[in-house]
Amino acid sequence: MVRAKRFVIAGKFDGLPKVTDFQIVEEETPELKNRELLCETLFISVDPYMRVFGRFLKEGDTMLGEVVGRVIESRSTRYPVGATVVAGYGWRTHGVVHEDEKHSLPTAQLRTVPADYPKDLSTGLLLGVTGMPGMTAYFGLLDVCQAKAGETVFVNAAAGAVGSLVGQIGKIKGCKVIGCAGTDDKVNWLRELGFDYVFNYKTKSLDEELKTAAPEGIDCYFDNVGGDFSVSVLKSHMKAQGRVACCGSISTYNNPEAKGQHIFEAIVVKGLKLQGFSGAAYEEDWPAATTQVVKWIREGKVKYKEHVTSGFDQTPQALIGVLTGGNTGKAIVKV
Amino acid sequence: MVRAKRFVIAGKFDGLPKVTDFQIVEEETPELKNRELLCETLFISVDPYMRVFGRFLKEGDTMLGEVVGRVIESRSTRYPVGATVVAGYGWRTHGVVHEDEKHSLPTAQLRTVPADYPKDLSTGLLLGVTGMPGMTAYFGLLDVCQAKAGETVFVNAAAGAVGSLVGQIGKIKGCKVIGCAGTDDKVNWLRELGFDYVFNYKTKSLDEELKTAAPEGIDCYFDNVGGDFSVSVLKSHMKAQGRVACCGSISTYNNPEAKGQHIFEAIVVKGLKLQGFSGAAYEEDWPAATTQVVKWIREGKVKYKEHVTSGFDQTPQALIGVLTGGNTGKAIVKV
Repeated sequence: MVRAKRFVIAGKFDGLPKVTDFQIVEEETPELKNRELLCETLFISVDPYMRVFGRFLKEGDTMLGEVVGRVIESRSTRYPVGATVVAGYGWRTHGVVHEDEKHSLPTAQLRTVPADYPKDLSTGLLLGVTGMPGMTAYFGLLDVCQAKAGETVFVNAAAGAVGSLVGQIGKIKGCKVIGCAGTDDKVNWLRELGFDYVFNYKTKSLDEELKTAAPEGIDCYFDNVGGDFSVSVLKSHMKAQGRVACCGSISTYNNPEAKGQHIFEAIVVKGLKLQGFSGAAYEEDWPAATTQVVKWIREGKVKYKEHVTSGFDQTPQALIGVLTGGNTGKAIVKV
Repeated sequence: MVRAKRFVIAGKFDGLPKVTDFQIVEEETPELKNRELLCETLFISVDPYMRVFGRFLKEGDTMLGEVVGRVIESRSTRYPVGATVVAGYGWRTHGVVHEDEKHSLPTAQLRTVPADYPKDLSTGLLLGVTGMPGMTAYFGLLDVCQAKAGETVFVNAAAGAVGSLVGQIGKIKGCKVIGCAGTDDKVNWLRELGFDYVFNYKTKSLDEELKTAAPEGIDCYFDNVGGDFSVSVLKSHMKAQGRVACCGSISTYNNPEAKGQHIFEAIVVKGLKLQGFSGAAYEEDWPAATTQVVKWIREGKVKYKEHVTSGFDQTPQALIGVLTGGNTGKAIVKV
């Protein structure tokens, strides 16, 4: 039993979350029951999806999300004291988890560090390139989009945790990869990562850039943005029989009633396939995919960045940063 | 060589097509080259898709579409004089076709009546329940939607050539089938066809009806309508992991710039799959599917209606009727 802090929802989210939408509660953690463990949080993940799934929480609920923690008390033989785990107990300094706990969110279930995970790789990456965002990129591009060598891939929010890996896996698989981001610094980083064509969507015309970058059209569109941005891509730039991995819709998370041109006709006429998905759906295939991603990191074929905010109390600010484009690479909070 | 008539586009379509958007040209058919055949048109198909693909035609182009014809001259051994064929030469009283002709439209290539086709079944049905619309319903529901016994299927424009077969195949496969149409007569016909729940979307609230008909949500949505109608279905009534066969978007064909709420977030959050498709993509599998549909007709498990307009000159009016909901079942023109 320890004195712990957690963030609860202080009111209904309206538009971009504000720091005052979250409130810290302090309390003792409960006594462990059989097969439960108590973790001390090391890192908290902040991700765009939290904006939309946060909408389903009510006042007083603990804010959701994945963490990396260290087991400090245990009544579980599978997770002994000292083990590092990835858990889904939300924005807490300490969390009690049952060893069979399943999450209802797009986060994977409780797990430990893979057996073949290199000792010198930060466990914080288990919230990024070797965790849910990494697996989302991997299965979204290779399974949902079925990207093949020689095809043209376009990914937006490309300097984020998911997008940056989508582009690099695309290159490894022999695709032509186009990426965009919202600052010149991010765009420069994408160039370093080996993207074939990069642009700042805030200072350039999306239409003109895609016309230049993909005059024959896009085969695979990995979409983190949604809204008018995606309407333009679908209506004007997708090839016939193109595939769209609908991973996120950050442009409308703060305004779900937003309107734009309908896309049904474009879907029919071009024979497009759009699929919403979550990396968690592929959980059984994670071990092999994680091993592959770690191998690519070792070989220098995959690079990553972490955007680390320090201090549990700063978690709301860190999420707001993610939603306003403040991060390059994976955003996490070091507790 | 015969004196023939054809309809050409008289100007740019703007909104709902008008009779004056089409013009009859009279001319001699050209002399046949090797492997060509000359057909006399018996039936012309008029379908909603013509509104959208017609947009790609320019002034003076022959209006597109499939016909049933009888070969009256032939330099093809595959298609001798007297044979009945389905061809894609558009709105013509007579057409010259090369025996290898492929269409670029969502119509299948030149073909004859299947060998096992019952003598007493009208060849006009080869433009309907045993042709492209039938195959569109069959593969859209069973392959694109992957409809399974016990699932809930919703189809709109359900009294049309495609929708009415979607509902009946759904019932044959053990699904719960919901259908809607725009007149009470059509709705009554759907009830006769065995749909589980039917409603007139013009006089009832789509939201209320679907809440009642599918309180647990819809697994498979066969969409002929698009626009705001489909936004409502996707955002409020699809189950998680639901599948949408995007077959048509008739609500926006006359106004492709129409706006409504974005659907990207619903696709992401619910993990929906939307797929635009055309029955023509399944052409290799048509013979087996046609045999199956004919068998169902013989067993009384599939019923159909034809909406026949008489006279070649009336073809534009027949298409306008289809686009304004004037037909129950398959609309064709008897030349």
